[in-house]
Amino acid sequence: MRISIVNPNSTRSMTETIALAARQVAARGTEILAYQNDAGPVSIEGHVDGALAVPGLLHALAIAERDGADAHVIACFDDTGLEAARSVLKGPVIGIGEAAARMASLVARRFSVVTTLPVSVPIIEDNLARSGLSTLCASVRASALPVLALEADPAAANARISQEIGRAIEEDGAEAIVLGCAGMANFAEDLSQAHGVPVVEGVSAAVKLMEAAVALGLKTAKSGVYAPPLTKSQGFAYPAGMMTDRPASA
Amino acid sequence: MRISIVNPNSTRSMTETIALAARQVAARGTEILAYQNDAGPVSIEGHVDGALAVPGLLHALAIAERDGADAHVIACFDDTGLEAARSVLKGPVIGIGEAAARMASLVARRFSVVTTLPVSVPIIEDNLARSGLSTLCASVRASALPVLALEADPAAANARISQEIGRAIEEDGAEAIVLGCAGMANFAEDLSQAHGVPVVEGVSAAVKLMEAAVALGLKTAKSGVYAPPLTKSQGFAYPAGMMTDRPASA
Amino acid sequence: MRISIVNPNSTRSMTETIALAARQVAARGTEILAYQNDAGPVSIEGHVDGALAVPGLLHALAIAERDGADAHVIACFDDTGLEAARSVLKGPVIGIGEAAARMASLVARRFSVVTTLPVSVPIIEDNLARSGLSTLCASVRASALPVLALEADPAAANARISQEIGRAIEEDGAEAIVLGCAGMANFAEDLSQAHGVPVVEGVSAAVKLMEAAVALGLKTAKSGVYAPPLTKSQGFAYPAGMMTDRPASA
Amino acid sequence: MRISIVNPNSTRSMTETIALAARQVAARGTEILAYQNDAGPVSIEGHVDGALAVPGLLHALAIAERDGADAHVIACFDDTGLEAARSVLKGPVIGIGEAAARMASLVARRFSVVTTLPVSVPIIEDNLARSGLSTLCASVRASALPVLALEADPAAANARISQEIGRAIEEDGAEAIVLGCAGMANFAEDLSQAHGVPVVEGVSAAVKLMEAAVALGLKTAKSGVYAPPLTKSQGFAYPAGMMTDRPASA
Amino acid sequence: MRISIVNPNSTRSMTETIALAARQVAARGTEILAYQNDAGPVSIEGHVDGALAVPGLLHALAIAERDGADAHVIACFDDTGLEAARSVLKGPVIGIGEAAARMASLVARRFSVVTTLPVSVPIIEDNLARSGLSTLCASVRASALPVLALEADPAAANARISQEIGRAIEEDGAEAIVLGCAGMANFAEDLSQAHGVPVVEGVSAAVKLMEAAVALGLKTAKSGVYAPPLTKSQGFAYPAGMMTDRPASA
Amino acid sequence: MRISIVNPNSTRSMTETIALAARQVAARGTEILAYQNDAGPVSIEGHVDGALAVPGLLHALAIAERDGADAHVIACFDDTGLEAARSVLKGPVIGIGEAAARMASLVARRFSVVTTLPVSVPIIEDNLARSGLSTLCASVRASALPVLALEADPAAANARISQEIGRAIEEDGAEAIVLGCAGMANFAEDLSQAHGVPVVEGVSAAVKLMEAAVALGLKTAKSGVYAPPLTKSQGFAYPAGMMTDRPASA
Repeated sequence: MRISIVNPNSTRSMTETIALAARQVAARGTEILAYQNDAGPVSIEGHVDGALAVPGLLHALAIAERDGADAHVIACFDDTGLEAARSVLKGPVIGIGEAAARMASLVARRFSVVTTLPVSVPIIEDNLARSGLSTLCASVRASALPVLALEADPAAANARISQEIGRAIEEDGAEAIVLGCAGMANFAEDLSQAHGVPVVEGVSAAVKLMEAAVALGLKTAKSGVYAPPLTKSQGFAYPAGMMTDRPASA
Repeated sequence: MRISIVNPNSTRSMTETIALAARQVAARGTEILAYQNDAGPVSIEGHVDGALAVPGLLHALAIAERDGADAHVIACFDDTGLEAARSVLKGPVIGIGEAAARMASLVARRFSVVTTLPVSVPIIEDNLARSGLSTLCASVRASALPVLALEADPAAANARISQEIGRAIEEDGAEAIVLGCAGMANFAEDLSQAHGVPVVEGVSAAVKLMEAAVALGLKTAKSGVYAPPLTKSQGFAYPAGMMTDRPASA
Repeated sequence: MRISIVNPNSTRSMTETIALAARQVAARGTEILAYQNDAGPVSIEGHVDGALAVPGLLHALAIAERDGADAHVIACFDDTGLEAARSVLKGPVIGIGEAAARMASLVARRFSVVTTLPVSVPIIEDNLARSGLSTLCASVRASALPVLALEADPAAANARISQEIGRAIEEDGAEAIVLGCAGMANFAEDLSQAHGVPVVEGVSAAVKLMEAAVALGLKTAKSGVYAPPLTKSQGFAYPAGMMTDRPASA
Repeated sequence: MRISIVNPNSTRSMTETIALAARQVAARGTEILAYQNDAGPVSIEGHVDGALAVPGLLHALAIAERDGADAHVIACFDDTGLEAARSVLKGPVIGIGEAAARMASLVARRFSVVTTLPVSVPIIEDNLARSGLSTLCASVRASALPVLALEADPAAANARISQEIGRAIEEDGAEAIVLGCAGMANFAEDLSQAHGVPVVEGVSAAVKLMEAAVALGLKTAKSGVYAPPLTKSQGFAYPAGMMTDRPASA
Repeated sequence: MRISIVNPNSTRSMTETIALAARQVAARGTEILAYQNDAGPVSIEGHVDGALAVPGLLHALAIAERDGADAHVIACFDDTGLEAARSVLKGPVIGIGEAAARMASLVARRFSVVTTLPVSVPIIEDNLARSGLSTLCASVRASALPVLALEADPAAANARISQEIGRAIEEDGAEAIVLGCAGMANFAEDLSQAHGVPVVEGVSAAVKLMEAAVALGLKTAKSGVYAPPLTKSQGFAYPAGMMTDRPASA
Repeated sequence: MRISIVNPNSTRSMTETIALAARQVAARGTEILAYQNDAGPVSIEGHVDGALAVPGLLHALAIAERDGADAHVIACFDDTGLEAARSVLKGPVIGIGEAAARMASLVARRFSVVTTLPVSVPIIEDNLARSGLSTLCASVRASALPVLALEADPAAANARISQEIGRAIEEDGAEAIVLGCAGMANFAEDLSQAHGVPVVEGVSAAVKLMEAAVALGLKTAKSGVYAPPLTKSQGFAYPAGMMTDRPASA
């Protein structure tokens, strides 16, 4: 099967990190198609970045489906554009935020999310509420690290995140941790060993959930809120040149 | 004071209807600046239309603030882009969906929303949940009328909506009705008299709430989720030519 | 239009403060009719004070409607008697607690309330829950100041409230503050500047919301829980002499 | 021990019915002191009746405590004045609405309430929400019978209530029924046999719960919202002559 | 009447403590039948202990009903097997956890639970949620005392629990305390006096609630989730020899 | 990897159906170990059957882990014994009820469950609430088919279930369907085609989710409610002979 993973921002190094994380966990027989939203912001921190990224993200996803992807992953922890994406695509779609939280809830009664900036906390809380995961979430904590700082100084970032994980366990009663940013994909294993709790990272969780959905033959329901848009929007002109049409994995 | 009202879709007749409804209720001394998102879809029905409309909508709102608007109204019942708009603007912003529901809750214990297509029902339900209004809402009902049908045959639309209002009162215990589309602005008074319950329309509700907020000197909180976007997105290039720069009210 | 504002307690200086706050924010063309419940307690702190104040409060409101008031404000943050008031009056009614919280929720994702005594905290929490505002409220904090201390030593009271506001912002993540007592009306502007967050005061918020409701032609729904009482209670003898019949504004 | 039961309305025949129901279920050794609020409305239907009844009710309860009552029952299904009563009394207090719902929840997973007029439905729903019982309540149904009709034509009333019970079982999945008015106390046993489900009546439930509380040595917590009112209200003049000072049981 | 109380674990000294606590509070005319689950674990701490105790517990309860018990108490704060017990028995059944929380909610707006080990906290929280008591519960705190430590060194246990009660009052705003283990039955009175708040203990609360239910003629509803099991399970062979057939009270 | 699937009841034909369904969907490289609880009831319908099945189920799961299973599936839609199982096992565990609901929520905004007997409805509702899935569930409907009827007359069962699915779509707004019994595993594909909505079956959903969890290296959190039982229960004698020790797959 083919699973697309779309980085909704325009930072190539992050796209590569994400694609690598996806391929490391993909089953034999799963091809990962990685895309990048060249017309998007360099990172997504808050509602404005997210809103500006969505048209290009939808464009990338449409290309991915044309390229034969059976399922799709939105590689931003805010699950940017997830509801719209489910409306334009036939195959199942998941965001890495929802994916990580759902997997964490399978192995722990209460999990905490450790994310980047405080501005993302209410967005994540709203997403968890919409997905019915609020009551399973002990806390959403911000590490105060901007997204791109994760790449600039990984060791410092790892230490800062580790500190916040310690607080989530001590003060909030977290039994498992969800890493709240695609850029933290590499940190999961070390942090799990350091703290002795499951640490779930969204890119890998999303790939495995989409593999599961495809194997089960599931497609997004089209009879309700994810009904395809009416013709007017199907014909709507996407901003030209917003996407590299070839998968970054090529 | 100046209040901007932005139609996030590109249908001029609807912009005019909205501007008229806003001006009819505006206080003496309030100037209404009406804008239209020429690059948006012809109407907003579902998540995809909404997502595609947002960048142009934000552009329009930025122009409105440059034009001196003290507060802003997003004239789509889905409250399209509301969270992002609150992050980019200094003055208060409201969507007509939240505005109508909040005014209805001042005069009734339980209200129902009557909207256009079923695809909008879960979007409205999610918005009400995020605004804490779910427990006050008896039901969200779809009339199965597309947005543009409201203009094409107003009499038929009015009759269909009236029928659904009757059911909301009878079956769901609604004590007041919220009209769930900007295009229904003209129907409120007749429907209120016909059914003997308060009927709240969003454009007028939003204008009055924004007048209230400006008079109270309130501006959107900038210390939390509505913090302005980081520089990268402030410098982000909005798609060129997406907006008529002059207010439609000129 | 005419808006009545009723102080449910019998402290004249507080009635004057409230009336002044209302008139300062009222639109040109809005006449404020201020009333005082001479038969009520000197202040309302807890359920007992509230319960004893209601009959006189309802009496005052009935007089206000007879005097031509189009809408009504109950000037106690506990929203004392609000449900009963909505049942006896034709025009819309709001309490200053509900008014302040609703306005705060238009400009912030999460607000905190800073009130007087701990005994009021659960009352306010219950009111917020009934109005669907619990999920938007970060905390309700008591300053441990009795109501009348606000007038006795305003500077000390202001300092104490400011301290609690700082904690709400730091510890609870409040993005805006609601002042939880009518006697705090004068403190809002200074506190907003000192803390850099919106600070909402109930008297002014209530006046503007009632102006909005009247301008929209809204009246309280009479088909449900706010149905007028049956004849027996309409003829029920209110305790004689409980009210000064002339508005304090005369 | 002594348990007071106060009818917050002024209808003597109802006071007698209530006292009889209380005495039938009281344990040997429990003395029932019955009071009536002569200054209250003839029945309590809606928020206004309730609000006007409270001062006299509190007066009656204060007399009951002076007369040696160890615990108290408010004999109105709306639990009129319950929070204020808990603040003025040392012994435990319960309303018959809360009592019946709590006992029903001990023997069924989901119960329905069948009450008198539709105006009471939202009041009962609010009370259940405040007591945490909403999720256990399948429905609150109105029989459309005014309170006094229960006495005027008991057979017709019984038949009407039985019909609504049938619907609650069939349509709402109720496993037990709560009779939502003190005037229905005599109907419980027949209705339980007719429908084969537990039927709980509030007067008897309240008496047994208060006997339990007294036997356990429990008194109302005074450190929080039920703190006694400050001196000002302790000295507040209750409306003179509102109560028959002698228990109706004398 | 006869009320059975079953200790779901096999520790005889705890059975005796429980039986004594039950008999001290039982009304004249109530016979307490005490049983012990000899095949159960020595104490119940967590889901596994609970699950392994249930078959023997159900066996004991069946014997109790055969012995003429009119109602039943499960003497474990986790309410182990409560739902299953309600399905196999005709008379009403309660667990001491639900009993204590319900009685506490009659005399306080918010209570805290102080239990033994952290592993029990989520179990108690789930039980409170299922019973609709979550919103009335300020916190569930663990004292980190294993169940059997309560007997081994009562003075030390009392001191540790007292410390946690102090925190619940100070930090969580608890107005009353629920003791979260059957082994704490003897501590209630001292702790209530020491802290000046109501302290509710489950064994006595459960006995009084079951006396109330029997006096009201209530039996468990059999039309819904508590329907008796189909024949297959009625004939299911309980593990032989799991119970002492004679009540420990003999 | 090895995944165990345990049928908590003793009906061999159902074990074989379940094992077949699991193997059909398992990835190449996944070995399915199927077990059956010979000491359990012939089917699980309600709380009593469930409670009696758990000790044998835990025994079977312990054997499965000894046999090298990396993850575990409890093949009863009630998720019988799930919390206890997570406490005794190192690898991740899921019940087919939770698995199916979680997969359905990835492809639809609102799903309905169609189960067997009404007695299971509240159990499933409680499970969904505990897992945070209540708000995503449109309804839980009973087909009134006993578990074993699914095998006795599959065509009739299929028709009955199909009828209830139609109602869930029409009346409750379900966008996807969850089949609420392990015995319905074979019906999913036909029913999905007949109704044009995703139909999720729990056995296959659980196998794929456990494959995902193992691939991600996740194990059940042991720092909280799933901590292993204390020594006493580790040494607790499971009822002898309750299990066939060899996997049914041998």
